[in-house]
Parts: sequence; structure tokens; C-alpha cells
Amino acid sequence: MSDKINVGLIGAGRIGRLHAEHLAFRIPQANLVAVSDIILEAAQKCGTAFDIPTVTQDHRVIMQDPDIEAVVICSSTDTHSQMIEEAAAAGKHIFCEKPIDFDLARIDRALAAVDEAGVKLQIGFNRRFDPNFRRVRELVADGKIGEPHILRITSRDPAPPPIEYVKVSGGIFLDMTIHDFDMARYLIGSEVEEVYVAAGVMVDPEIGKAGDVDTAVVTLRFENGVIGTIDNSRQAVYGYDQRVEVFGSGGMVAVSNNIPDSAVLSDAQGIHGSLPLYFFIERYVDSYIAEMAEFMECVHKDQSPSVTGIDGRIPVVMGYAAGRSYEENRPVKLSEIA
Amino acid sequence: MSDKINVGLIGAGRIGRLHAEHLAFRIPQANLVAVSDIILEAAQKCGTAFDIPTVTQDHRVIMQDPDIEAVVICSSTDTHSQMIEEAAAAGKHIFCEKPIDFDLARIDRALAAVDEAGVKLQIGFNRRFDPNFRRVRELVADGKIGEPHILRITSRDPAPPPIEYVKVSGGIFLDMTIHDFDMARYLIGSEVEEVYVAAGVMVDPEIGKAGDVDTAVVTLRFENGVIGTIDNSRQAVYGYDQRVEVFGSGGMVAVSNNIPDSAVLSDAQGIHGSLPLYFFIERYVDSYIAEMAEFMECVHKDQSPSVTGIDGRIPVVMGYAAGRSYEENRPVKLSEIA
Amino acid sequence: MSDKINVGLIGAGRIGRLHAEHLAFRIPQANLVAVSDIILEAAQKCGTAFDIPTVTQDHRVIMQDPDIEAVVICSSTDTHSQMIEEAAAAGKHIFCEKPIDFDLARIDRALAAVDEAGVKLQIGFNRRFDPNFRRVRELVADGKIGEPHILRITSRDPAPPPIEYVKVSGGIFLDMTIHDFDMARYLIGSEVEEVYVAAGVMVDPEIGKAGDVDTAVVTLRFENGVIGTIDNSRQAVYGYDQRVEVFGSGGMVAVSNNIPDSAVLSDAQGIHGSLPLYFFIERYVDSYIAEMAEFMECVHKDQSPSVTGIDGRIPVVMGYAAGRSYEENRPVKLSEIA
Amino acid sequence: MSDKINVGLIGAGRIGRLHAEHLAFRIPQANLVAVSDIILEAAQKCGTAFDIPTVTQDHRVIMQDPDIEAVVICSSTDTHSQMIEEAAAAGKHIFCEKPIDFDLARIDRALAAVDEAGVKLQIGFNRRFDPNFRRVRELVADGKIGEPHILRITSRDPAPPPIEYVKVSGGIFLDMTIHDFDMARYLIGSEVEEVYVAAGVMVDPEIGKAGDVDTAVVTLRFENGVIGTIDNSRQAVYGYDQRVEVFGSGGMVAVSNNIPDSAVLSDAQGIHGSLPLYFFIERYVDSYIAEMAEFMECVHKDQSPSVTGIDGRIPVVMGYAAGRSYEENRPVKLSEIA
Repeated sequence: MSDKINVGLIGAGRIGRLHAEHLAFRIPQANLVAVSDIILEAAQKCGTAFDIPTVTQDHRVIMQDPDIEAVVICSSTDTHSQMIEEAAAAGKHIFCEKPIDFDLARIDRALAAVDEAGVKLQIGFNRRFDPNFRRVRELVADGKIGEPHILRITSRDPAPPPIEYVKVSGGIFLDMTIHDFDMARYLIGSEVEEVYVAAGVMVDPEIGKAGDVDTAVVTLRFENGVIGTIDNSRQAVYGYDQRVEVFGSGGMVAVSNNIPDSAVLSDAQGIHGSLPLYFFIERYVDSYIAEMAEFMECVHKDQSPSVTGIDGRIPVVMGYAAGRSYEENRPVKLSEIA
Repeated sequence: MSDKINVGLIGAGRIGRLHAEHLAFRIPQANLVAVSDIILEAAQKCGTAFDIPTVTQDHRVIMQDPDIEAVVICSSTDTHSQMIEEAAAAGKHIFCEKPIDFDLARIDRALAAVDEAGVKLQIGFNRRFDPNFRRVRELVADGKIGEPHILRITSRDPAPPPIEYVKVSGGIFLDMTIHDFDMARYLIGSEVEEVYVAAGVMVDPEIGKAGDVDTAVVTLRFENGVIGTIDNSRQAVYGYDQRVEVFGSGGMVAVSNNIPDSAVLSDAQGIHGSLPLYFFIERYVDSYIAEMAEFMECVHKDQSPSVTGIDGRIPVVMGYAAGRSYEENRPVKLSEIA
Repeated sequence: MSDKINVGLIGAGRIGRLHAEHLAFRIPQANLVAVSDIILEAAQKCGTAFDIPTVTQDHRVIMQDPDIEAVVICSSTDTHSQMIEEAAAAGKHIFCEKPIDFDLARIDRALAAVDEAGVKLQIGFNRRFDPNFRRVRELVADGKIGEPHILRITSRDPAPPPIEYVKVSGGIFLDMTIHDFDMARYLIGSEVEEVYVAAGVMVDPEIGKAGDVDTAVVTLRFENGVIGTIDNSRQAVYGYDQRVEVFGSGGMVAVSNNIPDSAVLSDAQGIHGSLPLYFFIERYVDSYIAEMAEFMECVHKDQSPSVTGIDGRIPVVMGYAAGRSYEENRPVKLSEIA
Repeated sequence: MSDKINVGLIGAGRIGRLHAEHLAFRIPQANLVAVSDIILEAAQKCGTAFDIPTVTQDHRVIMQDPDIEAVVICSSTDTHSQMIEEAAAAGKHIFCEKPIDFDLARIDRALAAVDEAGVKLQIGFNRRFDPNFRRVRELVADGKIGEPHILRITSRDPAPPPIEYVKVSGGIFLDMTIHDFDMARYLIGSEVEEVYVAAGVMVDPEIGKAGDVDTAVVTLRFENGVIGTIDNSRQAVYGYDQRVEVFGSGGMVAVSNNIPDSAVLSDAQGIHGSLPLYFFIERYVDSYIAEMAEFMECVHKDQSPSVTGIDGRIPVVMGYAAGRSYEENRPVKLSEIA
């Protein structure tokens, strides 16, 4: 047991419980010793389900426990940067769900604290660990498609979140497209210079009333010349649609959606296949496990995580640039933001 | 023989010969009686191949033949509008290859001549007659995907044309994207209001020296709110890439490339399929036949073609808007052009 | 016109008309100069449709015409061997629809006549000319799957023929499976030694009353050790199902059905594709053209056809062996027949 | 902890360790309290890896522990029936890997012991729990393909087992095809009456020297009239090939192989996809978990397992019938065996 890493989990909501299950059952290197949630009942349920010895309403119990080497931050977004600073101050390695914060100054303060403390910080862009997207990245990085020219990301949710959530989500670009911004940077291996957004309210007028859009097409220009598009919708009635395609001088690589089974029924009406896996919990379960396994491995072997603080900051900048592009209907450079 | 339609072909280049073959062998209603080309040898070769009685260097022989009811104009683009005017004056029904002209004033004069003469005019946007795209249009028009929200068109050539051609092509947007502009209007059934272009020279620097681009991503905003993207490349090394996808409130429809055979080889290295049909001659042969069959049917039954003069004009306007958007890096409204 | 080959067509039923259209419009080397049918009206309709100069009820008009170099025999099966003998005696090259005959002695007499006359004989196993199956054969012959071990042929019709046809068809093995027997020999490039049949009446009891079966699974043992299966049904409600798979020491190659369009509709119920092309006229049109083009080419260049008399005989032997296997429920060697 | 089921594992080889991991980490209802293996070191490694309190060389420690409610038998095949009898005598519920035994008399004695003791017995035909095959069964059972007519099972391993294993495996029909025999019964929901085998040595002559075959095509006749084929090879160089297809009066359902990612690379040479998951450990991991979860659920809720003793016996009978059919080259009825 001595070479396992003691982990404390902060936040026992949906995503926190997901990480708890993986830390408890799927990642042999991890030893989940504590869980906190401001809703004590949530912490208790999680603790019972996964046999976690310490259960508390107060995250400081975790921060102050000298036996805990690493924390996994799954509390609400507005607390992330504060938690990172506290954990850094306590000398603990940090896994933090995305986004770090909606405020760039607070992000910078948090990242500075991490730097100063010399702890590791990994941001939860789990999709980088998905076997499909990872394979695309490998093929692109290995030059199998030559020089990349065009990137296409399709990212559509099966259903919009509750309108109350939409109101505090930071808007579609910081809540939903942020994953695609990270994916774009990951797949191309270059930074985006400029974004242009065409968007609208097509799914639900309530989303428009909340000051947000629900459908968007984003054009990206990368420093290396690549042109990308992301298309988002808050509602694909056929389920979670998560595809990418990279085209280059030597070819193209594309991935399709994951399905629960490959059964194809041919009848007098047509040829029928199964719908994609419904949403991120089902679709990305392997990537959630793989990202946490990498975090544990990085702590164990004293290596740098592959998704770090700056990777948490840049997509937020892109989100703000996208928002401004939408409002002003013009291409916006990232250098205009912050 | 008396109920067949006598047709004269003007221009016996590559596309002219293609139509000649179809008129001679694949469209029972047509009676191809004359062919002209300013290069007499081209007309002669075509005449011999397809048993065409009248072969001439002078298209006026066709225009003046009272037994000819319809002309098929495949001469060089700069002569199209003049040919249309002459044919209209001669009371002949007209099939004209795209584009009508690069000059909007000349287009307008040609269309006015057609209107005045009361003859039929069909523009050669053959892709509308492709079984794949036709099926997509049917499904969209039938409401099978609900209200359309997002359109995606991928249109990549297998190899760039000769640089000498590029120089007189009118630029990628008027030469290549013009087909996709027509496809966008066809699939969505609404007009485009604004375009935004991100483009570059990635395939061949010579294309850049000729003042053109070879890679482009175009964002379209339709009057009905739909957002579309077109991505073009002058060179897809895996062959002609012609796909579309329409996403809406009730679902999505997408088509993939046509392949010469469905053989899939599984060996120790991977699973391997055949490359797409190489280029438009192979890929769109059925659509070329179908468009000409419709033209003959319209003449025969005195019906209006489904692709008419205005459908020839609007994509040219879109091409100019796209060019301006590229130059000025801003969204350009179609109302700014013409 | 002088280097075209004058062709006479015997039999203007469905398959005869098909060949007539191809000879008239799709095969430049052919000059279709005469058509006969014992039903004069059928010959006349065909003659009018394809501008055939000579139309007759009496096939001897064709046999006796010294300007006719080649005949295409599409009359009823029971006349094939007689027509072959007459054509051979008249020194005409012969394309004959399958099967040559149901009587092996008559087949042998017809083949002997062809040999003696030194004319060419091509049997109408058109599927060998299909791009899918041709590609499979090429990959197998090129060693891309190593040594072949297992062959699988799926061959299912969209609907059974009229019961009156079933009664005179010779039974499923001589009427339907015969194509698959030829395909098996073509794909593997080895002869079959033994067949075993499991079959039944599952589609229509009337077929059983007519002494036939409508569903069959045939096991083939080839001289080179390969084991094959053919599965047949007279009725696949989703349409014409024509697939093959060859598995070997170095891999596998498989082909899927041909579809009219590649449109895939994703909606809340599932992912839906189009049904296969309905039946052989649509599915195999290209192979009918290609086989006739080869026949013309062989006549023109004095070459041997790739599907010749013996290829017409062996599948009939296989059909008889299959019938006996079904009746006696045991594996039957081809050497037991004839 | 009190409502968890205490489980003892007998046999800590490859498959035993697999079940141990699932019992320890993936099945919350299970409490894995003991492991035995005649090779103590194997038991110890397994115990350490999965924190199992009791580790022993002697399975009787497990049989005699009154706190253990259920045993999972993964010892060598020749011990299965003995272990079942002992566990039944001890009143423990039993999960036993397939096959129960190669000797039908011993199988019958074991099943009688289970009946007498009134304990539950589940046989490890895990593939029934695979999402693909389960979906096929559901569609068939729901009548989505009407009355089933033809079944096709393709089951090919990526590489043959070591020749030493082949010698004691019981032969391909009892070692490999046995899974497909079970699958056939599961998918069709009817019993097989007769089998016919065509088989040979094509992969490795050593397998032939060991008295076995490595390539086989089995024809099955079901009581309800369905005709099935199974094709087996000990070596598919492209990986584990596990597909089924059921065809019926109302349609067809088919499943394809599982792949590690859906990336498709298009380059100048072709269109390339990833190879299937390599072998059963990767391919069937979910089905192993699901079968064990069902077993725990059955114990917990006092329900009958869906794969029980008779399901373990019949495929052994089929294996013997297949062997005899191969030796005598004739169809063999199951009623001839035992």
C-alpha cells in the first residue's frame, strides 16, 4: 500500500462521483482517502459508495492533511482558482476540472501560485485521452496526413442543460465550445490566432432570453496556417455527436461516433443502426479513467502532466474572443483579449 | 424520329464531348444533329465519334438552322453570355454550362434576352442531379431532419488544374466554390445573405503567385438562419472528396464519397478500402446524364427547368462576395455586390 | 463503320432487350443489325427501340446472313444448345445466356459443335464482370490474402419469381445457385470436388409444392482444399443481397451491397441508410455491359473469351450434385454426376 | 458490507485473474474473500493484486468456509465436474467456466449434484452477455427480422494456441467451436438437430499432427428449420474476427467487429481503418463483467441464471457430433451422441 498515492476529492457532484469511482476501483495507484463537499450529504453518499475513510463538509480538512499528496478539484467553477491556490500553498499536486475560472486575472493568480509552489497541475480536458482523438493526434503528429490544412470538429450535445444552468454557465463558448477549443489546439499542435463566429438561437428561445446562443459555427485560424471549424449545437436529437476530421497535404483522418453495439438491421424500410452513446458519462468514461491514471502516474514518477495550466487558460481566452466575435460579427484576434 | 428534339452542340472540348456522348447514346429524346467548335478538328473528332451529321467551325450554322430546337453551350466561359443572347434571338432553348459569365452586367443582359425571347434556359449545375445530393435535398425538403440548422459541404479536388488555367479561372470562388454555392442554395432552399472566408495558399505557391488561393473555408449565413460552411482544397491526395451534411432540429443527413468498388481488404496491417472515384467525369457521370435528360424533358413538355438563369447568377454574386471577404477579412453581405 | 462487328440478337425478352440496348448504345464496337423472336411483336418492339434494321420471327434469317459475324442468344433455355449448334455450323461467334442447357449430353454436343467450327463461345455469367467481384478476384489472385481458406457467398433475391416460372426453372440450384457456383469457381480459381446442401421451404409453400426449395446453404469443397459456403434465399425483404468474402492465410477481402445513394439519416429513432439496388437489372447493369464489351473485343481481336463453354457446363454439374445432396442428405462428389 | 456476497475463486490462471479483477473492482455486490490455486504462487499473486484476505493452495479451504456463499471455478477443465460436485455438496452457488467436462457422464453427475443440492449453476458462456450479440438476440426475439431462416457465425482467432495446448484441448470443436455452438442456440432460441462439418488443416501442419484441424465450416440444422453455418479458423492475421448474421422472413441483422478506435486514414494509397481488438481479453471484457454481475444478481435475488447446466452440456454434445461428422464426412444427428 505504501507506494500508492493518497488522494483527496473536493466536490462530490456528478463529475466528482465519477472520479471517485475511478480512483477507488479503476486506478490501482490511487488511494482515495478523503472527500469533501459543501453539501455534507453528497460527501457522505460518495464516501459510503466508495469506502472513503474521511468524509467532510470542509475542504480544509483535506488541505491540512499531511498524508494527502494530491487533490482532485470538482467543486463549482467559481471556487476552482481559490482551491488551486490553497492546494498549492499546502504543497499538494492538483487535478482540476475545467474551466479554471471565467476570470483571467484569477486564473493567472492561480497559475502563479502553482508555479511558485512547484506542484503539478493537470486540467481536466479529458477528451484528449479518448482513444479516437488520441489516434487522430498520433496520425497527425506522425505526419501520416502530411502538413495539416483544414480541421473540422463537430460537437453537439444530445440535449440542452437546464435553463438555470445556462444562466450561470458563462455562455456556450466558455461552457461547451471550450472543450473543442482545447481539442483544436491538441489535434493541430499549434496556437489559434483569430476566431470568427456565426451563431444563433435555434434550439430553444429561452436560451436566447438568457443571453446565450445554442448553435454556433466557429472558424479558427492557427499560427501555422491551418484553418479550422467547430460546429456546436445544444441539441442533436440522435444523441451525442463527437467527430473530428483533419485534412492535410498527404491525406485525411476522421473519426466517427461511438455506438453501444454494431448491430445493423436491414428490413423492408431500410438499413438501421444504433444511436451513438448518449452523453459524456457513457461516451468518455475511458478518457476520464485515462486522464486520472496519467495524473497519478505523473505524481508517482514526478513527471509533468500533458495538460497543464496554460492549457486551462488559453481556451478561456478563445471563449472570450468567440463571444466578442459573435457580438461584433467580425474576426477577433486572441491578442485582443487579456 | 419526329418526336425527338434536334440539338446543336456549341463547343466540343472535354465537357462538350461528354454531353455529346450522352445526347447521342443515353438520352433517347435527343437527336444531336450538329456540333461546332472554333477548333474545327475538335468538332470533327466529336462528330465522327457520335455520328453527328453537321460539323462546323461556325456556331452560327447552328443558330441559323431552323430545325434545331435547342442548343447546348459548352464553349469557353467568356463566350457564354454572347451565345445565350444569339440563341435566344434565334428562338432556341438553351442549356449553358456554368458559369454564365464573370461579369454581372453581361449575365443580366443574357438573362434579359432569354426572358424576352421566352425560351428555356438551364444552367449546368449538374451536381443537383447527383443521386446522393438529390436524396439529401429530398430528406431535408420532406422535413426528415426538422428545421435545418447547420450545413456542411466538403468539396476537394484530387489535384489542382494547370497553372495556366488557374490564371484565367476567375479564382477559386468563381471556378470551384461556385458549385458549392449552388449546392448550398439547393440543399437548404433559402438564399445566403452573408459570407465569411478564411483561406490561404497551402497546396502550391504558384497558385498564390497567380493571385489565387487553393484552400478555403467559407461560412454562409442564410436568410432562414441556417449557418453553413464549405471547405475547399485544390488537392486531396486520396481523390475527389464530395460530401455534404445537413443538421437540423429533427436529425441529420449526410452522404459519403462514391467508390469504384466496395472491396475491403483486412490484412495484418489494417482494414483497407478503395479510394473514391477520381474526378468529376467519373463521379458525376450520372448527374450529367440526368441534367441533360431533364433539359430535353422540359423542352419536350414545355416545362421550366429546375436550374434556371437566376440560379446561374446568384453563385457568381456569392463568388464575388467571397473574394471580397477574403481580401478584407470580414463578413460580406451579398447585397454589397452588384 | 467497317471495323464494327455485325451482331444478330436471338430472343428479345427482358434479357435480350437489355443486351440490345447495350449493343446499340454502350458498346461502340458493336453494330446490332438484326433481332429475332418467336413472338414477332417482341422483336418488333426491340427493333424500333434500338433502330435495328432487320426484324424477324425466324432466327434462321440471322443464321443465314453472311454479314453477321456474331450472335447473342437470349432465347428460352431449352433452345440454347440448338441455337449454339446452328450458329457454330454457320461459322458465327456466339454469346449465349446461361445455362447452356439442363441436359449434359446436349451441352456436350453443343460444345463439340463449337470446337469443331472453331468459333468463339462466351457464356453469360455476367457477375464475373462486376467491379466488386472482379476486385475480389484480383486481390485473391494477387495473393493479397495469402492462400485462400474459406469462401462465403451470400446471394439472396428480393422476391421469388412467379410460381409458373419456378416450375420450369430447373430448380433453385440450376436457376439461382448456378450463378454462385460460377462465382465460387471464379473467385477461388480451383474446381469444386464435392457439395453438401442443407435446404428447405421457408419463403413460400407453393415453391415446395412445385418440388423446389427456396432457402439453401451449400457447402463446397475445392480441389485446392478451400471450403466454401453459399447461402441462398428467394426472398430478402430488404432487397437484392449479393456479397462475397474470401478468407485466407494472409487476410480477408469482402464486398458489400451496392446502394442507390449513400445518404445516412440520423434521427431520434436510429441511423438509417438506403436499401440496396433492387434487383439484377439495376445491380448488374455495368457487368452486363462489360461482358458484352469483352465478347466484342474477343471477336475483334481474335482472342478467347474468359468465360467459355466449360464454364457453362461445370455449374450445371454442380447444380445436379447439389440437387442430389439435398435429396439424399449427404455430401455428393461432382464425379458422381455425368 | 452485510448485503454483499462472499465469493471464493478456485483457479488463479489467466481467466481466474480476470474474474478476480472484476469481482474486486467492477461488481459492487461481490466480496472476493478467498482464492485458491494448486500453484500457490499464482494464488498469492492474485491475492496481492486484488486484496483477497484468504489465499490457499487447497480449494477445500474455500469449500469448507461457511461464510462463502458462491464459488467461481476457473481451474483446469478436467477438475470442473469434481469442483461442481464438491461445491454443490457444500451448498454453494456455482459459476463454472466452460466446458463443464469432456465426458458426458461426468457432466451428468455434476448436474445431478447441482439439482440435488438446489444451488445455482451458471456456465461461463460470456459471449451471450456481449452488447453486440445481446442486441442481435433481442432483435431476433422481438421478431424484427420475422421468422429466422439462416444463421451465419464467423469466429476466427488471431493466432493458434501453443501446440501443447492443442494436444489437450479436446479438439477445435470442443475448445473453440463450443462457444459458437452456444451462440447459435442463444441467437436462434431453438435446438440443433444435426451438424455437418467440412474441415481441414490449413494454418499449421503441427495441428494436424496433433490429430486436430484448424479450419472448419459447420452446417447446423435447427429443430425450427433454421439452417446455420459457423466458420472457424485458428488464425486470422488481421485479428479476432467475431461476427454473426441472422436472416429471416422480415429482414436481417448483422454485427461487425469491435475496434479500438474509429479513426479512418485516407491517403494516396487507400482508405485505412484500425484492426479489430486483438483477442478475447480485450474484446469481451464487458461481457465477462456482465456475466459475473448476473451471477451475483441471481444469487442475491434468488433467481435462475440465464446460462445454466443444460447450456453447458448441449454444446459438448454438439462438439462430439461435429467431430464424428468430420471423421465420417456425413451429417450427424445430435441424437447419435450420448
